[in-house]
Amino acid sequence: MADSPNCDLKSLSPLQLFEKVTEQGEKVRALKAGKAPKDEIDAAVRMLLSLKLSYKTATGQDYQAGLPPRDLTLINNGTTKEEDEDFVDPWTVQTSNAKGVDYDKLIVRFGSSKIDTDLINRIERATGQKPHRFLRRGIFFSHRDMDQILDAYENKKSFYLYTGRGPSSQAMHVGHLIPFIFTKWLQEVFDVPLVIQLTDDEKYLWKDLTTEKAYEYAKENAKDIIACGFDVNKTFIFSDLDYLGTSTGFYKNIVKVQKHVTFNQVKGIFGFTDSDCIGKISFPAIQAAPSFSSSFPQIFNGKENIQCLIPCAIDQDPYFRMTRDVAPRIGQPKPALLHSVFFPALQGAQTKMSASDPNSSIFLTDTPKQIKTKINKHAFSGGRDTIEEHRKYGGNCDVDVSFMYLTFFLEDDDRLEQLKQAYTSGELLTGELKKVLIETLQPLIAAHQERRKKVTDEMVKQFMTPRKLAFEF
Amino acid sequence: MADSPNCDLKSLSPLQLFEKVTEQGEKVRALKAGKAPKDEIDAAVRMLLSLKLSYKTATGQDYQAGLPPRDLTLINNGTTKEEDEDFVDPWTVQTSNAKGVDYDKLIVRFGSSKIDTDLINRIERATGQKPHRFLRRGIFFSHRDMDQILDAYENKKSFYLYTGRGPSSQAMHVGHLIPFIFTKWLQEVFDVPLVIQLTDDEKYLWKDLTTEKAYEYAKENAKDIIACGFDVNKTFIFSDLDYLGTSTGFYKNIVKVQKHVTFNQVKGIFGFTDSDCIGKISFPAIQAAPSFSSSFPQIFNGKENIQCLIPCAIDQDPYFRMTRDVAPRIGQPKPALLHSVFFPALQGAQTKMSASDPNSSIFLTDTPKQIKTKINKHAFSGGRDTIEEHRKYGGNCDVDVSFMYLTFFLEDDDRLEQLKQAYTSGELLTGELKKVLIETLQPLIAAHQERRKKVTDEMVKQFMTPRKLAFEF
Repeated sequence: MADSPNCDLKSLSPLQLFEKVTEQGEKVRALKAGKAPKDEIDAAVRMLLSLKLSYKTATGQDYQAGLPPRDLTLINNGTTKEEDEDFVDPWTVQTSNAKGVDYDKLIVRFGSSKIDTDLINRIERATGQKPHRFLRRGIFFSHRDMDQILDAYENKKSFYLYTGRGPSSQAMHVGHLIPFIFTKWLQEVFDVPLVIQLTDDEKYLWKDLTTEKAYEYAKENAKDIIACGFDVNKTFIFSDLDYLGTSTGFYKNIVKVQKHVTFNQVKGIFGFTDSDCIGKISFPAIQAAPSFSSSFPQIFNGKENIQCLIPCAIDQDPYFRMTRDVAPRIGQPKPALLHSVFFPALQGAQTKMSASDPNSSIFLTDTPKQIKTKINKHAFSGGRDTIEEHRKYGGNCDVDVSFMYLTFFLEDDDRLEQLKQAYTSGELLTGELKKVLIETLQPLIAAHQERRKKVTDEMVKQFMTPRKLAFEF
Repeated sequence: MADSPNCDLKSLSPLQLFEKVTEQGEKVRALKAGKAPKDEIDAAVRMLLSLKLSYKTATGQDYQAGLPPRDLTLINNGTTKEEDEDFVDPWTVQTSNAKGVDYDKLIVRFGSSKIDTDLINRIERATGQKPHRFLRRGIFFSHRDMDQILDAYENKKSFYLYTGRGPSSQAMHVGHLIPFIFTKWLQEVFDVPLVIQLTDDEKYLWKDLTTEKAYEYAKENAKDIIACGFDVNKTFIFSDLDYLGTSTGFYKNIVKVQKHVTFNQVKGIFGFTDSDCIGKISFPAIQAAPSFSSSFPQIFNGKENIQCLIPCAIDQDPYFRMTRDVAPRIGQPKPALLHSVFFPALQGAQTKMSASDPNSSIFLTDTPKQIKTKINKHAFSGGRDTIEEHRKYGGNCDVDVSFMYLTFFLEDDDRLEQLKQAYTSGELLTGELKKVLIETLQPLIAAHQERRKKVTDEMVKQFMTPRKLAFEF
């Protein structure tokens, strides 16, 4: 490589820059291994550092070996990257906008459909129930084929629900509850079976964990999930490490998906590289397989064609776009999807809440005092700098994290609207809004903790035992 | 691509040529899909054909999409390819030498050890049994860590045997019996447990088969294996499609191997490409995992450290080189290996016997008449063109397929030596040698068929049921 590292680096994509850094790193290693002259090594190291700087400038992140920048162009459906483009994949959510990710744009990019008033009304008619606040407030905002689920449901054809969680630690935060709260509601209003996948194998592959530890986390997380109030007669919770060795139906579907997806495809969808382990590369098939009812012969009596509906945060969509692509080729129905927005970090909606950053998260184990302190100290405010200015100009609900959390957790629509108006007009101060949130969350979390205490190991075992559920197929 | 296809194609490696053909094929498809002008498409097609011709000239084989030429340099341990280099990987065995692959060279390339007289004597001392003819005659010729197995055995530390088969069709040929005949002997003289893997998932991934068909072949092949005379109390036969969903120990080891092997590594070892499905890419971990006793908790009482010995044809070694590389990193003992030569095709030792070429194979289902006809018609002869010449100059046992087969199947060492001398001196004619082979194989295969008839579905089920064997661990 004779050319100067800075000659035309600006014209390179983050991925091309990443490859240049990797290449140069290999060159440095080779020179060192070959005991090349010191000045030659020094020059190569200087170029490496310079390339790393260019990479950081372009991506805003430090270069990490084996961790390429995600392939945005794919998510973008081929449009070029804009300065303010949101970044969304199963591992990272990032936007420069304090209001959070632009979900309308995401629908266009991902090729999904908006959950509009017509669809919400139709769900209300089909179930005879008031739509959940997550539907009323656009928290579940996007879908794939939900109309087909309703068509079939109206014709007395049942379906099943599938959702999941990657058990990376014992600590679950309030954001983790969103899919489970909504799934529980769906299960109740439609009265259908539910399977919940705990991807402990994924966590083993991605993190510095033993399989034993990952499985332990899975069982701990199952307790929090059970504490949401699921019915053991209608719900099957499974750890991959455990269930994969208990069900031939599951592995057969995994290997079928694995036959129909190439490395090129997962590279494009998930940004895997040649340096990734073969476990990561083949993992997407394991998240795909529960979309097919034959993965659960004990529940569906071996039936292959029961339609699946997956409620999940939109960052999981890449897995299921892949699944929907494969499904017809292995003679299976495509799963339908309901996508939620991300649950914002305390510091603001630019990223989602993450258990690995304790300051960004309210944990399900937090005490009332911890909840109060975290919200008061960290929750990003849309209020003004001084009380005077706030009274005069009002606060901004669009970027106020406390208000956002209330849209998730405050059931009363009228009260929420009142708060919005009072905050926007300047009548309600930030401290007062935070107080409402604290008083909403404290009892919710305390109640969750009470329910969780009552979840015994025996109950976890029951939920996690492969068995027939209270449905006939 | 503006440059002429033939400009410097000769300087390209087979893999580079392969990539050029693939690239050009994609270009042609894109032009056709984009409804480009006819002359542009025609020019691209001409270039494609020209590239394919260059590929065939360089490799001696037709271009097949998705099937790149194997990375010979890797097997060669970095030495450059010679004109007469043997080609050996799990899918292809090819040599230009009528005597067959140069196994001494292969030992050097693969970095294994020769099974020498000392080792054979040591096996005889340890077991108190006359070494099997496959050892006496160099048919099992190479090993890894067999001395460690014997060290441990002499110290009353047990081990287990692991071998397998890819059930690509119902038809097994005599060559397929070699590892099983030898494994049965090893099991008897050492009195140890044996696990036999039927890689029906591999066959599903590589061939145009349903999972059901692959599993059916597995059960059919199990009958032929059982007919070799294995003891059901000491032997566990399993299909991957079946057992993976029955044993959490097995899947846990698979995912552990998958975490410690990158795509770069399997690309180097097995020649996989970006166009390969993720099932193929992750499959090597599934062949690796039975090398660890914790994959069989029901047999080894959950013990992790029981040493494994794998008798197999040398083309399977890449899987186990990978396994031995990973083993210490997941806290498991490295499996030991005993490697056999290939069973030559009827037409000569340049390739191994292949079930997909009926003329190259003597099947276990062949009638005495078919055996006679195939040997008389197809078995490559090392004899002279005329009886006169043969009497005068003698035949060449080194390239005579009938004689090679006799080294595999004729138990009597003295008789074999007599035949060799008589054939080499010209006293014995080709027809007479073939007659000896026919008379050796006919009763062997008839006896196999008799035993196979007695193998019931119930017996297959017994062998394939995960259970404790007649050993304490």
